[in-house]
Amino acid sequence: MDYRQLTEASVADYVASVPALAARFSSFADIDVREVGDGNLNYVFIVTNLAAPDETVVIKQAVPFLRIAGESWPLGRQRMAFETAALRRQAELVPGMVPSLFHVDPEMSLIAMQNLREHRIVRGELIAGRRFPLLADHLSTFLARTLFFTSDLHLDPAVKKAAVAASVNVELCRITEDFVFTHPYDDSASNAYPPGLEQAAIDTIQRDPALRAAVAEMKWLFMNGAEALLHGDLHTGSIMANERETYVIDPEFAFYGPMGFDVGAILANFWLAFLAQEHHQRAAGADPAPFRNWLLETAEAVWDGFRTKFLALWREDDASRGGASFVGRDLDGGASAEAFRQRFVTRLLADALGFAGCKMMRRIVGIAKVADIAGIADPAVRARVEAQALAMGRRLVLDRHGFPSIGRVSALAREIGRVDQVPA
Amino acid sequence: MDYRQLTEASVADYVASVPALAARFSSFADIDVREVGDGNLNYVFIVTNLAAPDETVVIKQAVPFLRIAGESWPLGRQRMAFETAALRRQAELVPGMVPSLFHVDPEMSLIAMQNLREHRIVRGELIAGRRFPLLADHLSTFLARTLFFTSDLHLDPAVKKAAVAASVNVELCRITEDFVFTHPYDDSASNAYPPGLEQAAIDTIQRDPALRAAVAEMKWLFMNGAEALLHGDLHTGSIMANERETYVIDPEFAFYGPMGFDVGAILANFWLAFLAQEHHQRAAGADPAPFRNWLLETAEAVWDGFRTKFLALWREDDASRGGASFVGRDLDGGASAEAFRQRFVTRLLADALGFAGCKMMRRIVGIAKVADIAGIADPAVRARVEAQALAMGRRLVLDRHGFPSIGRVSALAREIGRVDQVPA
Repeated sequence: MDYRQLTEASVADYVASVPALAARFSSFADIDVREVGDGNLNYVFIVTNLAAPDETVVIKQAVPFLRIAGESWPLGRQRMAFETAALRRQAELVPGMVPSLFHVDPEMSLIAMQNLREHRIVRGELIAGRRFPLLADHLSTFLARTLFFTSDLHLDPAVKKAAVAASVNVELCRITEDFVFTHPYDDSASNAYPPGLEQAAIDTIQRDPALRAAVAEMKWLFMNGAEALLHGDLHTGSIMANERETYVIDPEFAFYGPMGFDVGAILANFWLAFLAQEHHQRAAGADPAPFRNWLLETAEAVWDGFRTKFLALWREDDASRGGASFVGRDLDGGASAEAFRQRFVTRLLADALGFAGCKMMRRIVGIAKVADIAGIADPAVRARVEAQALAMGRRLVLDRHGFPSIGRVSALAREIGRVDQVPA
Repeated sequence: MDYRQLTEASVADYVASVPALAARFSSFADIDVREVGDGNLNYVFIVTNLAAPDETVVIKQAVPFLRIAGESWPLGRQRMAFETAALRRQAELVPGMVPSLFHVDPEMSLIAMQNLREHRIVRGELIAGRRFPLLADHLSTFLARTLFFTSDLHLDPAVKKAAVAASVNVELCRITEDFVFTHPYDDSASNAYPPGLEQAAIDTIQRDPALRAAVAEMKWLFMNGAEALLHGDLHTGSIMANERETYVIDPEFAFYGPMGFDVGAILANFWLAFLAQEHHQRAAGADPAPFRNWLLETAEAVWDGFRTKFLALWREDDASRGGASFVGRDLDGGASAEAFRQRFVTRLLADALGFAGCKMMRRIVGIAKVADIAGIADPAVRARVEAQALAMGRRLVLDRHGFPSIGRVSALAREIGRVDQVPA
């Protein structure tokens, strides 16, 4: 049907009018609709039959502007087509880790999907100090499978090149180019400086040519490194989980980009949570060390698990082709293929750390904050954590080639994240 | 008109049947047609009115197979569309450096263009020891302008991303992926080992996991680094010149790839010529040193000129935007933008050297040779030059980040290219 923007009042009628969705409900007499979009881009409605709560769907609709900015910022509704395509590809690659699609309405820029009633957004749960025992295992699987199987390491070059061309996502990439890689470092009017953060801390990322040049190198890689189909916005607010399962949602930023961007995004969010938890745990009357350690161990396990699984997929895939690998025919018992694999993941860690650093810095001075830190009420405590996040982000971008293992990044986080530490 | 493969016998009738071409000839009574294709991919006919030699056109037609391999190797005729699009873009960016297009016939996979009667293919001229005083200046201009103006340094991201999607050139990229980056190193049946070259020399590029891993890194960058619209096959056989002018021809390999690939391709061909000229100059009774020095100086001038012009275009372009650069708004008198520029060209030199190394090695053991070396009649002398080319290619790929200037590469070439030098 022709596009019209749905509201809480009109969603139920829409659902009832679409046979594939109407069939999921035994009655529309007692329908509950709640708009739960996080407010940045889209509208998200949860539609539930209160008389039979298992009868429930999520309706996500794009509006032709950036919701966080208002109608003065036009944004093409075609972003929902990128989300749809990415959800379908991810459903093939990591079944059970993305919500099931029930209905796609391109004219309405709308999808209807599984309501993850038993899962919670991970960011909020981490802020509350809750652990997810399988989260690192699941996320490393998500990363390894989505990145490996959409890359030239697995696909025929013709298929991969066609996939690159089909995933050109101009508008949402531009948001990342501007708000992750440019504005935080050029004192843009769009920045939102926290009240307590000292100018000297801001200057460390805006008045250092070496840092800005290093960030520009990451921006260049983001714009030019078409390695794999990325989620494109893989922070802890895009992950829903419980003790048993993990779902990755909201892939409207999906495009072919550098693998390290997705890996770095998720790592950055664990490190931001680590820095913030010194406060949250103490505020809850707890010793911060155990939960903070769990956060660093989770980040380490995401990287180490990703690295192990990615390499295993690669070796299996090569073995299934009789030993032919990206390097060519095997002449040396696999030594050349393995040498390339090791160099590949070493370079990938450097990329991931560089992207993680950008993601951390932009969450402090850029327009989009993380609740882990922005939710700290005491301005002095918040400013200390923010300065720590800027210092860690700086170090990761500048020294991204200098970390031989993820454990060394944990050591850096512990050094910078000491309660008595206020980096210059 | 419907596709049919032209021959020397049928070309004149075709030309006479196309008004835009027929109008270039005052008479078809005394028409001369010569097929001059170098035999690898396409057919190229020179059509001339012998009674008025200024009335002349070049007809280039793609056949639906790889000409060098025969009809058993299908190759899409749409490659002529990539050549046409690239010629048009290059004509805008470097006017007077690509042949003028007179007529495009997509159904016939055919273009008609300017006959460069006053210019010669540079490779043959270099073999004969002839110098081109403006060649380095022209080639550095070609590289700087085509690479800068098609990149994210100049274009709006939307325009650049659309250009990337429009330039996906699967088949011709696959030829490079296979024959430059894979087969030479995996003892493929497609390789053509020179008669005198010792197995030990071949083993240095096929039995060294570190070398094969480094080559795979260059292949990865070739397949994933969509930085600029490349010529894609910029060797000295794709350049026609005289003392005053330089033309770049045959861009059917054009696609969005890493800038260093075009830069490295042309450098590699000067270095191969340098290694070969020890023989050719002596065979002509000359002291090899002066012409060899000119070849190295020309390679240096290509890089230094490219670097200088590319940076100048970049600075001018930024200045025209009020100081806004890829790094963002200027906060420090341009220091951040300049820091990024310097890091960018340093990285670009490393990429160019890595690609140059692959190009040198593949010309020795791969299917496609260079006449500079393959034309050396004495098998022992030829094998010595071939071993030197493999040794230099190896060093460039393995140590590509270790050359602080192009002059250090000339020093390497002189060290490896000594007449008494037969690298292991």
